[in-house]
Order: sequence, then structure tokens, then C-alpha cells
Amino acid sequence: MFRSEVKPAVLRQVVDTVSIIVGEGKFRVNQDGMSLKSVDPTHVAMVDLELNRSAFESFEADDQELGIDIEKLKNVLRSATPSDVITLHLDEESNRLILNMGNLMRSMSLLDTRHMTDPKIPDIELPAIVVMDGEELERGIKAAENVSDHVIISMDNESFELRAEGDTDSVDLKIPNDLLLDLKCDKRVKSIFALSYFSNMIRAARASKVVKIGLGVDYPVKIEFDIAGGKGHVLYLLAPRIPG
Amino acid sequence: MFRSEVKPAVLRQVVDTVSIIVGEGKFRVNQDGMSLKSVDPTHVAMVDLELNRSAFESFEADDQELGIDIEKLKNVLRSATPSDVITLHLDEESNRLILNMGNLMRSMSLLDTRHMTDPKIPDIELPAIVVMDGEELERGIKAAENVSDHVIISMDNESFELRAEGDTDSVDLKIPNDLLLDLKCDKRVKSIFALSYFSNMIRAARASKVVKIGLGVDYPVKIEFDIAGGKGHVLYLLAPRIPG
Amino acid sequence: MFRSEVKPAVLRQVVDTVSIIVGEGKFRVNQDGMSLKSVDPTHVAMVDLELNRSAFESFEADDQELGIDIEKLKNVLRSATPSDVITLHLDEESNRLILNMGNLMRSMSLLDTRHMTDPKIPDIELPAIVVMDGEELERGIKAAENVSDHVIISMDNESFELRAEGDTDSVDLKIPNDLLLDLKCDKRVKSIFALSYFSNMIRAARASKVVKIGLGVDYPVKIEFDIAGGKGHVLYLLAPRIPG
Repeated sequence: MFRSEVKPAVLRQVVDTVSIIVGEGKFRVNQDGMSLKSVDPTHVAMVDLELNRSAFESFEADDQELGIDIEKLKNVLRSATPSDVITLHLDEESNRLILNMGNLMRSMSLLDTRHMTDPKIPDIELPAIVVMDGEELERGIKAAENVSDHVIISMDNESFELRAEGDTDSVDLKIPNDLLLDLKCDKRVKSIFALSYFSNMIRAARASKVVKIGLGVDYPVKIEFDIAGGKGHVLYLLAPRIPG
Repeated sequence: MFRSEVKPAVLRQVVDTVSIIVGEGKFRVNQDGMSLKSVDPTHVAMVDLELNRSAFESFEADDQELGIDIEKLKNVLRSATPSDVITLHLDEESNRLILNMGNLMRSMSLLDTRHMTDPKIPDIELPAIVVMDGEELERGIKAAENVSDHVIISMDNESFELRAEGDTDSVDLKIPNDLLLDLKCDKRVKSIFALSYFSNMIRAARASKVVKIGLGVDYPVKIEFDIAGGKGHVLYLLAPRIPG
Repeated sequence: MFRSEVKPAVLRQVVDTVSIIVGEGKFRVNQDGMSLKSVDPTHVAMVDLELNRSAFESFEADDQELGIDIEKLKNVLRSATPSDVITLHLDEESNRLILNMGNLMRSMSLLDTRHMTDPKIPDIELPAIVVMDGEELERGIKAAENVSDHVIISMDNESFELRAEGDTDSVDLKIPNDLLLDLKCDKRVKSIFALSYFSNMIRAARASKVVKIGLGVDYPVKIEFDIAGGKGHVLYLLAPRIPG
């Protein structure tokens, strides 16, 4: 069984952070809450989302998987007003997810999860970690999008740097240590990423103002932030591009 | 002769309610005010609009018909500010409608009304009548648009219900009696309608918060509401779809 | 050398007024400030922009030309916040313009100015001059765009008039003397212009509320207004269309 009540804003954070990676999600629910691990179709980006049962207004679930069309869930949320509480429950007979908001009921058939991969999120150690307000970073990303489709991220013990290089133009955002919330970096690290994925991940982190980024040398980047006022957590992994 | 002064907001309600049915309107003006009866090109939807002379700041008209391009009138209204009073008058010599707003004059040739049909709005009796705030209904429509292109409307003596059914998903909005302003329904009634027309009609009713809906069994729906602060009235009729 | 600091709003006015005429601009900088004279590709419209050094927060420049891609500069400004001060400087070694906003650096290669024409702005005398608030005019333009792609501008000693004539419809905006800030007109003048250019020019004048228009008989129109709080000036010249 699965039955829970949740505020639209919380469900919207889930949908927004997951939808940049996959269109269909295999959510696991159990007595602790809800979680999802997904990898994008090109196997470049992964998301690992955890939402504690305390993020819900009420929550009861047997251990099971729910295959959900993320785009449909997004549409349902468009009908919600901030004061709503959405009731979600699984109708086991019809294998449908039933959402109630006030007098409105939306029934959604669940997707078959058997063909959905269950990616193992690698537990990688990264030599450099920065914690910062994501807003400044968004500005750099916006500027970078005008000159290139990839972005060079680097750190040393003095600053975090985002760089984009086009044929004739370049963008450089260098945030010094004193404007960062935390910086741990023993040696200089640098990796190149697809700008579209990187920017979507940073924008998704807007839900929480504080974002934590782990970086290595030509290695995946780890982007982490809280959702649901600290009652949930999102981890993205993005594979580097081969420097060319 | 025809000469009147009107606030842009009133004219905008006329344009908005008529334009969902027809692009060219045959307006009748006489000493009582302005009216229009139109049927859409597919003969599925009708509008019957009445605007009392008291809805105008001033009004003088001989009994006559004015063929007006609704889209053009919509464009003219885009140049109007809320504090404007629009003067409309018929220049009989050039057969043009002249609109003045402040220093701006817009002259618009009238359309030939001879080829425009003059539909008879059937005076149908409907066994079920509901009066409600249209806002809640709009929410159901918005959700319904994600799952289907038609909508099932039903009533019994306890509630009003809107339902949309897709291949795998469904939407259901059930408004109980105590949330309705009025409900008269002796027997259960149900009809199916094209969602696009039904939703446009309900959205047009936004001009008045209160909307009255008359329903039968596999029969046209009647949607009625006031415009111009009660000095005008709109009636829509929408033919049912054959249940399939 | 060229190095200056400027508020984004000032640079945005420069970009907005120039971009309606050309996509690539040859800016001249010298000890007095910045200027540009450009003609559009069809040789119908010209812009003559002057920006005094006092419009900048700081300004130092040798006499030289900077070939700038206006669209790129527009994009850079999208990353600016109103509280920013943008530092622009020329990196002579790489022949790039470097823009700094906070921690963000944008480097932009300069365009070769050798193939850019250096139009001589003709010093024409016009028999009629009107000074007015551009807002009223914008309303006329908006209405005119619905009926025609050219506009007839005329003046006599009593009023300024804008007129557009379509096949069946017309728009007429007549602003009497007492609603104008100034009107000097000895004889009746009238010229016809491409509406798209004329409307873009009037809309660009929004930066300053007051616009000065000089007109003749089948002769170019001169549209002038201040930018940067009076520390800059824009002059447009637009060739008339042959009356047909």
C-alpha cells in the first residue's frame, strides 16, 4: 500500500530535479520515505534523490516501486494551488496512482518498472569540495551559454572557477575563497562538462540556495543540495567530457 | 444612425465571449442596445449575447445590423487604456465603423452581413441546472486537457461532476452541493462535449464569477453568465458528442 | 587604450538604440566619450549616437575605433544586474574587449572595422519640428501596425498627425498643439515612412520620455532624444517612401 499527503511545493521540487535526467522515474517507497536513482538515456548524468517521510504531511507505504511518468506529474502540479495538500495513493486493483487536490481527482496509470534500469550510484571520492550560494554560479552559466556548449570547472585552494571558451569569445567566472561558504581543495583540479546538463543541475539546485560541488581531474562532478527544507536531498553525478 | 460611448472593459467582454464562436459577427443595434446571435462554422456551438444600452456610457441607434470583424476589434482594444472611453459611430457614407479613443481614430469597414446566417437559438428546457463559481471548474478543465479532448459532464441532486478519460489516465472533479450556489436536478443527467469548446466557454465566463449551467441526457449544454456588471448577458449552447 | 566603467542601464540604452539599425557597430572612443554613426544595410535608416564621458562612471580612451557585435553585447547585458558596474577595457594584445561584472569576465573579440562604412550624417534642415511625449505616439503606432506597413506623418501649425491606411481600414492619431511640448511649423508638411523602422525608432526613444521629430515634404524624418539622463544623445534619420 502507498498513501501520503504532500504540499505541491515539495512534489514540484521532486519533479523539477528528476525531470532534467529522466522522463520516467522508478520511485521506491518504503517506511522511510521516497527515493529514486536514475541515469539519463545517454548514461552521462545520474540523479540520486531521497525524500524523508517527514517531508510529507502524512506517509504510509509498504516497500515497493512506482513507475511514474514525470511529465504527467508535472502537469498535475500545474492544477495545484500553494494552499492545496495533495493526497497520493496507489489503487492496487487498477495499478493506478490516484492524486486528490480538493475536489479534483487525477488518476494516472503506473508504468511498468521492469524495463527501467536501477543504476548503482558510484561512491566516488573527490579531492576538491566547494559549498556556495548557487545564484552567482547561475549568472556565470547564463553568460557561458552564449559562447560555448561546454564548460570548464576548476578549483584550487583560493577560488572556484567556471570558464567557457568559444571560437572568438570567452566567459570566466572566478569566485574567490572569501565569497564561498566552504572550500576544501589540496591540489588544483579541473574537468570539462556538457554545459546543458551542468546548467540544468545548477538551476535545479535553486530549490535550496546552498549547493555543494565535488570535483576531480577529468572526473565526474558531484552536485548536491537539500530539498523540502532539509527533509530531502538530491545528488547529481555528471560524467566529464574528454578534453579536446 | 449608430453612435455610442463605451468603456474598453465592456467591449472587451463582448469581443472575448463572441470570438470563441465566430471570427465575424453580425451585431444588431436598436434603441434597446446591442445583441448578437451566432453559430460556429461547424454548427456545434452557438452564442446569444445581449448588451443593454445602459452598459454604454451613451447609446443612440436606429435598428440595423453591423457586420464586424471580431479580430480587428480585438486589435483596436489592445490600443485602449482602462481610463479610455471609446466612441463608436457608424459613418454611413463610407459604411465604416469609426472608433475614437482619445486622439486616436480607427476606421474599420463593415462586413457585408447578407451572407451571415441568423441562427435561431432553440429554446430548450433542461432537467438539471447548476449555478456556481466558475473558478473551481476552470481547474478541472485545465487538468482534463492533459488526458482527453472531450469531457463528460454529469449532475445528480448531490453534486456536479466533470470527468475526462484518456487511454490510461483520468481526471475527475466532483463539486458537492454545499459548494455550489444552486443545484436543481431531479434525475441523474450526463452528456459528453468537445473539451476545447466547453473550456473556452467556461473561461469566457470568467468575466462574471457566477456561471449557470443547464444539462440534460445526451443533450446540448447551456452555459449562461452576466457581463458588463449585469447589464449584459451571454448564453452559449454546445451540442453533445455522440457517446462512443 | 580604452578602459571605462559604466552602469548596465546606460550600456543597454546604447545597445537598444543602435541594434534597430545595425547588428555590428563601429564605435569611436576618444577623450570626449563614445560615438557611433551607422547606416542600415538597405540605406534607409541612419543612427548618430553620442555618449559623453560623463555618462560613464569612469572613462579613459585614446582616439580609436572598436568594432562591436551588438547582439553579443546585448547578451552580456542579460547577465548584468542593475546594481552592477560593468568595467570595459580593450586588451590590445588579443584585440579583445574585456567586460567585467563582479566576478564574471566576458572576453569578446573585436570585429574588423575596415569593411564597415562610415556614413556621413547629412545635416538637413527641416521646416517642421515637434517635441512631445513619445508614449502617445506609441499608441498610434501600435494601432497603425494592424492596418498597414507604412505610415504617413504630417504636421501643420495646429497639430501633429500620424496616419495609416489599409485596403479597408485606417488609423489616425492627431495630437493637437496644446498636448505637444513644442511645435514649430510654418507650412503643412507630410512624408511617408516604412512603419517598422519608424515604430522601432519611436520605441527606442522610450529611454527618454521626450522625443523631437523634424519633418519635411517627402523628405527624411529626424528623430532625436536624449539617453543616459541627458549625458548622451541619439539622432535617427529615416528616408521617406515614395508616395504611391
